[in-house]
Amino acid sequence: MQDKETEISSLGEFGLIDRLTKDVEIKNDSTVKAVGDDAAQLHYGDKEVLVTTDLLLEGIHFDLTYCPLKHLGYKAAVVNFSDIYAMNGRPKQITVSLGISQRFTIEHIEQLYSGIKLACEIYGVDLVGGDTSASVTGLIISITCIGEGEKGKIVYRSGAKDTDLICVSGNLGAAYMGLQLLERERNIANDSKDDEFHPAFEGKEYILERQLKPEARRDIIEELAENGIMPTSMMDISDGLSSELLHISKESNTGCRIYEERIPIDYQTASMAEEFNMNLVTCALNGGEDYELLFTVPLADHEKIELLKDVKMIGRITKPELGCFMITRSGQEMELRAQGWNAFTDK
Amino acid sequence: MQDKETEISSLGEFGLIDRLTKDVEIKNDSTVKAVGDDAAQLHYGDKEVLVTTDLLLEGIHFDLTYCPLKHLGYKAAVVNFSDIYAMNGRPKQITVSLGISQRFTIEHIEQLYSGIKLACEIYGVDLVGGDTSASVTGLIISITCIGEGEKGKIVYRSGAKDTDLICVSGNLGAAYMGLQLLERERNIANDSKDDEFHPAFEGKEYILERQLKPEARRDIIEELAENGIMPTSMMDISDGLSSELLHISKESNTGCRIYEERIPIDYQTASMAEEFNMNLVTCALNGGEDYELLFTVPLADHEKIELLKDVKMIGRITKPELGCFMITRSGQEMELRAQGWNAFTDK
Repeated sequence: MQDKETEISSLGEFGLIDRLTKDVEIKNDSTVKAVGDDAAQLHYGDKEVLVTTDLLLEGIHFDLTYCPLKHLGYKAAVVNFSDIYAMNGRPKQITVSLGISQRFTIEHIEQLYSGIKLACEIYGVDLVGGDTSASVTGLIISITCIGEGEKGKIVYRSGAKDTDLICVSGNLGAAYMGLQLLERERNIANDSKDDEFHPAFEGKEYILERQLKPEARRDIIEELAENGIMPTSMMDISDGLSSELLHISKESNTGCRIYEERIPIDYQTASMAEEFNMNLVTCALNGGEDYELLFTVPLADHEKIELLKDVKMIGRITKPELGCFMITRSGQEMELRAQGWNAFTDK
Repeated sequence: MQDKETEISSLGEFGLIDRLTKDVEIKNDSTVKAVGDDAAQLHYGDKEVLVTTDLLLEGIHFDLTYCPLKHLGYKAAVVNFSDIYAMNGRPKQITVSLGISQRFTIEHIEQLYSGIKLACEIYGVDLVGGDTSASVTGLIISITCIGEGEKGKIVYRSGAKDTDLICVSGNLGAAYMGLQLLERERNIANDSKDDEFHPAFEGKEYILERQLKPEARRDIIEELAENGIMPTSMMDISDGLSSELLHISKESNTGCRIYEERIPIDYQTASMAEEFNMNLVTCALNGGEDYELLFTVPLADHEKIELLKDVKMIGRITKPELGCFMITRSGQEMELRAQGWNAFTDK
């Protein structure tokens, strides 16, 4: 249609969004923060309103051969809640739009919805609207979540300061290793002529659950508030620790140093990586979909953070000219790169 | 996956939504109105926050062989604004999520975005977020719009009262006839071996624009406010006048009488219907995508409404036991039926 045609994969998702939104100007007083964080921030009355949205496509973001519809619904809702928590907000409402191809029955969609409703129940969120439509191929799920936060307590990606401590909740790489396992067993099942094939999932329940039924870290947000800790920057880890650390460093105009030995990794993740002969730290740095919280706090909060059971300090924020590096166990400096999942090149 | 499998087309879109959302309970004080109107209503501080969402799928809701990407972007945004106006609100922010297949280049997506941005510019709306992803097939557009309204001035579908006047803005059936014309010319082009084929669009610009580049009736909402008219119920006409009148009557627990001779129809719509040998009133009753406003006002506002240039009174609200009928030019009563577009059966 035009002279110049550029493949989208040449820019990647973030490059495309940057290019599309670079000249967007804010016109309304109620718009506090637009494109570029986990959620948009709107100002209505005495509360800050947060809005985030996610589009999940069959064949790109999920595979129904190993993802039960109820789990899929649960996850689709929870990943949006996670974006609201990552702004130090509380999710309150969601809308759900579905595109549904002919191979799905009402019972299928009810299963999907039962997962969405369960997530809403557990996280105290109201389902307030949506849209359903036929689709030509596959299942399409678009969820928008609205949350609220308190004035002056919204946490952005851009607030990290030199000498801040870098903290991460839970452990990393588990969802990615769960995905590897699911894909291996699906391929074996496809190749197998044995109808009685049973996937080898025993003892791997934790990493499977991290992939299929992740949770948003509401508990961490509540613990931080209870302990009087206000993060200087925060985001949720959906594309991998490296990618998110680079986002925070870029938005905050800082550098960072993290320590390989401090990156929290679960035993099942480690044993699975060994079985697959994969580099464990690469999995933890670049494996996506953990939905853990990555945040920074002032150095003075060191002792308060130490009291939190499921939070680890993995490094510190530095001056921007020092770049973004991981110090390996052997003491070498390794530059962090965003090798996170790119929806336009990976398939 | 289950014993009982029911095809979605047996319920239709509204039946499916009813079934999926019937047991949804509201948990948060900030949720005022959930599923079942043009938009959800949330209460944050001194403003009412309205949220609506739409999912548009290539091959179902649009056809890029005759819909330019810029127009598509414009329309995708405007139909969401229309839902906010239909609650007597003002659209303020949108989020845009895209699923993009490999045949689209960055320049294509920029064209789409230029239409979205133009709509935002004209209607004073901020683009505040979104999500882009690869898709397996075709283009997927999910837009969520956030708007605001004043306390006590949000208008629902459910407020119509016996003896209220039924009003409609603009004229009806034009977008539907525009679509018929586009589809006819596309089919001729496909069958034609002549590379120089030029579609016969002369003198049909108005109905084409109504289909390809509809506007939301902000002007009507502003006029109503300026003239001190507060509708008792309102919605926008996206599925056809019949379907929307039945929604208002059902939600308000009323009946209605409209008069065939009063239904506003443009000259181009009429001449196109004649060319296609289609029943003009059927087109006006059941043709979708007009995005005009359908609303009811108390009988006492009769004279105020008469002063509005682009609003017509087409009938009145009755007691529920009197049902929903159109009085034809010959004086016969014809029961209104929702023959609006059903995304699960029409293709």
